[in-house]
Amino acid sequence: MYKNHTTAELDEVIAQSVQAFHQYKKFSLKQRADFMRAIAVEIEALGDVLLTTAAEETNLPLARLTGERGRTMFQLNAYADATEGGDWLGASIDTANAERVPPKPDTRKMLVPLGPVVVFGASNFPFAYSTAGGDTATAFAAGCSVIVKAHPAHSKTSTLVASAIEKAAEKTNMPKGIFAHVYGSGFETGEHLTKHEAIKAVAFTGSFSGGKALFDWANQRENPIPVFAEMGSVNPVFLLPEKLAEETASLAKQMAGSVTLGVGQFCTNPGLMVAIDGAPLEQFLVDLKNEIEQIAPSAMLHAGISANYSEKLTAALAQKGVEVVGETSSQTTDIQGKVTVATVSADVFLANPVLHQEVFGPYSLIIKCKDKDQLLAVTKAMEGQLTCTLMATKNDINAFQDLLSEVREICGRLIFNNVPTGVEVALSMQHGGPYPASTDSRFTSVGADGIKRFARPLCYQNMDDEFLPTELQNANPLNINRTINNVLSKDKI
Amino acid sequence: MYKNHTTAELDEVIAQSVQAFHQYKKFSLKQRADFMRAIAVEIEALGDVLLTTAAEETNLPLARLTGERGRTMFQLNAYADATEGGDWLGASIDTANAERVPPKPDTRKMLVPLGPVVVFGASNFPFAYSTAGGDTATAFAAGCSVIVKAHPAHSKTSTLVASAIEKAAEKTNMPKGIFAHVYGSGFETGEHLTKHEAIKAVAFTGSFSGGKALFDWANQRENPIPVFAEMGSVNPVFLLPEKLAEETASLAKQMAGSVTLGVGQFCTNPGLMVAIDGAPLEQFLVDLKNEIEQIAPSAMLHAGISANYSEKLTAALAQKGVEVVGETSSQTTDIQGKVTVATVSADVFLANPVLHQEVFGPYSLIIKCKDKDQLLAVTKAMEGQLTCTLMATKNDINAFQDLLSEVREICGRLIFNNVPTGVEVALSMQHGGPYPASTDSRFTSVGADGIKRFARPLCYQNMDDEFLPTELQNANPLNINRTINNVLSKDKI
Repeated sequence: MYKNHTTAELDEVIAQSVQAFHQYKKFSLKQRADFMRAIAVEIEALGDVLLTTAAEETNLPLARLTGERGRTMFQLNAYADATEGGDWLGASIDTANAERVPPKPDTRKMLVPLGPVVVFGASNFPFAYSTAGGDTATAFAAGCSVIVKAHPAHSKTSTLVASAIEKAAEKTNMPKGIFAHVYGSGFETGEHLTKHEAIKAVAFTGSFSGGKALFDWANQRENPIPVFAEMGSVNPVFLLPEKLAEETASLAKQMAGSVTLGVGQFCTNPGLMVAIDGAPLEQFLVDLKNEIEQIAPSAMLHAGISANYSEKLTAALAQKGVEVVGETSSQTTDIQGKVTVATVSADVFLANPVLHQEVFGPYSLIIKCKDKDQLLAVTKAMEGQLTCTLMATKNDINAFQDLLSEVREICGRLIFNNVPTGVEVALSMQHGGPYPASTDSRFTSVGADGIKRFARPLCYQNMDDEFLPTELQNANPLNINRTINNVLSKDKI
Repeated sequence: MYKNHTTAELDEVIAQSVQAFHQYKKFSLKQRADFMRAIAVEIEALGDVLLTTAAEETNLPLARLTGERGRTMFQLNAYADATEGGDWLGASIDTANAERVPPKPDTRKMLVPLGPVVVFGASNFPFAYSTAGGDTATAFAAGCSVIVKAHPAHSKTSTLVASAIEKAAEKTNMPKGIFAHVYGSGFETGEHLTKHEAIKAVAFTGSFSGGKALFDWANQRENPIPVFAEMGSVNPVFLLPEKLAEETASLAKQMAGSVTLGVGQFCTNPGLMVAIDGAPLEQFLVDLKNEIEQIAPSAMLHAGISANYSEKLTAALAQKGVEVVGETSSQTTDIQGKVTVATVSADVFLANPVLHQEVFGPYSLIIKCKDKDQLLAVTKAMEGQLTCTLMATKNDINAFQDLLSEVREICGRLIFNNVPTGVEVALSMQHGGPYPASTDSRFTSVGADGIKRFARPLCYQNMDDEFLPTELQNANPLNINRTINNVLSKDKI
């Protein structure tokens, strides 16, 4: 339906984005924040057509989409507040000392934007991690212009959201080219954008293969650029002995809910559970099977994801030693995500790397360990994760300090007695983990700290106050936090 | 003189570094800081033998080496204070809200160390950016174990400093393996270390070819890791018209001093000057020639650097349109750095990429522009830089706002009426710039913010207060700054 952009058209879009960047970078924090808030208003103003279009393209229920739209608007508003608040700038000032030998210069530092950013949205979050999602919002916050490549799986939805951004840009007097929306069904569009010398950063949410391709293209450029790719993970949940014995049934209910939430189509879906074998685990499996069988089957986002899930599920279940515990039996649609939970021994898991891979959908594999040592060995064998979860009593935590020490090394978020699905939008959230969960564990794609992905420190040395950015001027006119001679305050100088 | 480590020996060193990391990461901020301060004490305790050894290996004068030793100790102490201060942790807390639908979890985030770090020191700073230099200090601050590859050009000096670190480690009860010092004359040692799966980050100060090789190896790993390589730059100095006319002689004196400081062997050496042609520039060149000819010739760090300088200088001067303005004529030693300044027209500079390259040594090329537009074109054609300097009056700055906007995009530090040589150790310093000045412009290798290169955020969700790291506990026992529900304070909860 949408005409793919030609290479020449993409170059034109990029040239406009560069021009817009050089204007936008001079806009105040308040102007950026007002633009972001205006986008939220315009998204809401699109009304029900946005929800029905998204529902048609993604098979997601209206209630979920309504919630996700709210989350998207919340993100824009929350990040706008953070932008204006200015803490993210990391402003610091060291004043001069002419008496010192050699004289100490006046140095002042704050984050400045990287330049035009390309955003590749997620298929599973048509609003919150797509066109006007967290990546776009944080790039605008940082002071960057943005080019979004529409996700082919929901290009109508993306186009509607793009129109909201364009309206907001017009209403808040943003420079032409501050935002662009491009189409391309193959990988060539993404490759051309990522390799273009004027593009200064890339954000991506999706598969490992997609994220890795962008990362490689970006690093092989004559001038490499940062790529933040959030590529998902299997999000292991450790069911520790006392907790498992004391709350078997409720844990089964909780885990069944988390595995099947959104038809398992979340980056934080718990694709692995790890426990020590024994009677409590056997009871948990019985309870989990019962829970799973009660869950109504649902359609996945689109035929491609469903086919991919079926294929990976079939491959996973075909591995020696993997036994199905429970699954949905009824068939309601061709692109249904068949909920499936299976078990495997730790011995087999440790020997078979196929079982470590993500099966994107409502699937989870329970690893039965002989003892604590084997549970630790399984943990050490795991790749980088977005999240690790400990279902644990206080006694369990005390007894499993070695495990706690290990899981800390492999994830970005460590959860206690909560499910991994549900990523709170908050400054203290970390969404991103050691590779391959994301391409740089030092950054997050959720929460206002995500702004830092698109900015770099610039130090002004010995500059007259009147020419300094407002943020660094003596009078602190924006009343932001700054570290002055190593002490954080809102003081004037 | 020093036996190169074999691959098997390197693997053993790495295994010990991993073990040490898992203990060290649990050490308190105070324990880390005490270790760092103890290193400073032990470096001083080495006494004069350290200075004389370094002088013998590097040809640097004792006064400079004494100063650099002081700087190294200052860095260790200043970063130790910053480590304990805790601002760098970026601690943030969002408290739970059970009434919200869905319930809002308690999330708390802070930086945690990446893991074992490999440091490649600089040839031109045998103390401050070598074995116990800024990279090692900030990696220890972050909670990482460190493996330093001794620089072959000053391995005796490096070995002495390593002994000081080892003594400090012993005295402060650090785990065995917290620091290791390895030798290798070829690139194979660096390659093996960088490609080893247990190594989690690399820091480097040196040439573009060296830094780029590490960057590529690190990105091509099965699990890519961050590399912070500071690879130097030509650090353009813009001599704006009014300033040039008003302070011709003093600018010439200042620039001659900066070009020749340390025989031009600084990453921030001004390798380019840019000005609009005319009488003031002609006078400046006369004055600069006179200044240069008065400077006593000196030996470079070692024969390799001297040969490299001669080769690159010869190549630069052989380019069509390049004219020598002044040079030292006397010859005192075979490895002397011949001070040379030359001019070229902006037309030629724009057409010849060879002239954009760094000539590491006491050389600077002055670009003569026809007018303001051409000066801007020259700026836009420049690669990423550590620093850009504007020699400018207030009228100049007002008249050259376009230039100000452009230089901001190509450097990490923007200097006004100061020389680029001299990198202040301060929180507000940025040492690192757009590629190829460094491999990630979002980080610095000077100042306490350098710690952030070796750490990543970890979010704890819903964890009992007693099990949280001290930094995130309700009572704020360390009295550090934390952002609680979006407000920065030292409050308890």
